[in-house]
Amino acid sequence: MNVREFELIEIAREILSVKRDDIVVNIAEDDCAVVRICDKNLVLTSDCLHERADFPKGIKPEEIGHMALAVNLSDLAGSGAKPLFFLYTITLTNSVDERFFRKILHGMRRLADRYGVAVVGGDVDFGDELFISGFAVGVADKYITQSGAKVGDRVFITGLLGKAQLSLEQLLSGVKRDLIAYPDSLFKPEPRVLEGMEIAEHANAMTDISDSLAISLNLIAKKSHVGIEIYEEKIVLDHLLKFVDYDKALDLFMYSGGDYELVYTSKKMSHGFEIGKVVDGKGVWLVRKNGKREKVKFRGYSHF
Amino acid sequence: MNVREFELIEIAREILSVKRDDIVVNIAEDDCAVVRICDKNLVLTSDCLHERADFPKGIKPEEIGHMALAVNLSDLAGSGAKPLFFLYTITLTNSVDERFFRKILHGMRRLADRYGVAVVGGDVDFGDELFISGFAVGVADKYITQSGAKVGDRVFITGLLGKAQLSLEQLLSGVKRDLIAYPDSLFKPEPRVLEGMEIAEHANAMTDISDSLAISLNLIAKKSHVGIEIYEEKIVLDHLLKFVDYDKALDLFMYSGGDYELVYTSKKMSHGFEIGKVVDGKGVWLVRKNGKREKVKFRGYSHF
Repeated sequence: MNVREFELIEIAREILSVKRDDIVVNIAEDDCAVVRICDKNLVLTSDCLHERADFPKGIKPEEIGHMALAVNLSDLAGSGAKPLFFLYTITLTNSVDERFFRKILHGMRRLADRYGVAVVGGDVDFGDELFISGFAVGVADKYITQSGAKVGDRVFITGLLGKAQLSLEQLLSGVKRDLIAYPDSLFKPEPRVLEGMEIAEHANAMTDISDSLAISLNLIAKKSHVGIEIYEEKIVLDHLLKFVDYDKALDLFMYSGGDYELVYTSKKMSHGFEIGKVVDGKGVWLVRKNGKREKVKFRGYSHF
Repeated sequence: MNVREFELIEIAREILSVKRDDIVVNIAEDDCAVVRICDKNLVLTSDCLHERADFPKGIKPEEIGHMALAVNLSDLAGSGAKPLFFLYTITLTNSVDERFFRKILHGMRRLADRYGVAVVGGDVDFGDELFISGFAVGVADKYITQSGAKVGDRVFITGLLGKAQLSLEQLLSGVKRDLIAYPDSLFKPEPRVLEGMEIAEHANAMTDISDSLAISLNLIAKKSHVGIEIYEEKIVLDHLLKFVDYDKALDLFMYSGGDYELVYTSKKMSHGFEIGKVVDGKGVWLVRKNGKREKVKFRGYSHF
């Protein structure tokens, strides 16, 4: 998502949001909307993927189906919800045959089964570009938003970052699919569904890292009215330093997306790595090893 | 929807459907999926619209927003559900400005307010074609499917058919937008939300007529294991005969879509017009005024 998309979503919030007793988290306030149905928190999200903007070259149809579901499950995971149901709409091109379509669905089914998700609806039509839009429904006794971070919280991520973008750049530079560093991060990211549900038991704020750590942290800082400090000395870059130099590795870690890890703030850690803490103030800061504080901008890598 | 799309949806059913206690109506079994959440029937549907395939030339942005919501509410109406929540994903083209986007959302909001629907989620990105995918959530104490028609039921429709396609053909033949017969049917169809909820109290089978009456009736006949007879003498064509000859009018009535009326089978009528009855046997038949029975094929007009 780029800055223009965030601006448009802000416009949508302004025009569409309604106050209603059964709406707990409204449109554009968070990763997901939360609504009440008979004393349950129903967590709803939608996310779409385009062939040209979102699917790396050489992606297999099974992976397309996986990805379409994964990005939606990742949104639910960022709220700590247990996923239950999924619906999709898919636009196929005329060059797509039945076998390709079947493989997309098998990829979707495999991931759905792993997390007990039932795909209960779908709509198919034809157009000029392969396109999948997904809608996921989950439930959460306790859901976590981006706006609950508290001064004194520590900041954690569930896994290493930068792998998807590194792999993409290798692919775009001509490296074969079999030889890129982290093909699964790029083609078949695993949504942190179980981690999200466990973290929700103690976290104050959480979101998934779809666009970049920088964007996710800025959203948490802004919505929670706090500052966030990330410590360079705590950032693990070994998985990137085998392939790129230090500055590039740090940039990938902070500003690239596609790994679909979670970032959360809490007094305690249940999954992943500690990278910083929540402080008084505003904005997100990278505290370098030499003590200098650098502003972490609201920026992610553009889609390819 | 064309035959190929129905075949693909059948494949999706085969690959994706799972048996689970909380799934009452599964993928591709009906207009909507029905799932159970704490003793409530949650009715879920998704539907997508493409600029080139689904938006008539000259459609206004407010009408695009209206249409995107209307087609999903029509699916819920066909199940007799009360609509509660809506989420969308929208792909904008680079030629679309902020004003155009705002108007789309205002059109959506206006229709949503009319039926007490809250738009709680949205996702925006950019691509080569304007595209909106929608996801609607409703509840129904009693939901109606396509598979409950009983021999002896009478068959009803909630309103006159053929108006949208007639208007489209006028538009395509060069008639100005202000001068086509039924602009609202084409550009701003009204989903039969309240009618659907009331009909659900007594109907045995129901569905919306998005593709054509012929397709909707064939789905009901097939899924209910019954035959359906439609009587030519009961069909009202006056609204079309002002513009086209009798054969064309009858063809528009039976085989064109876009009016988003409901068709239902019941012992009693609460809305609309009677057009036929449910009989022993298989398939859908048009009984001509001279007594001849003609098979009503599974066919709709292609999208433009």
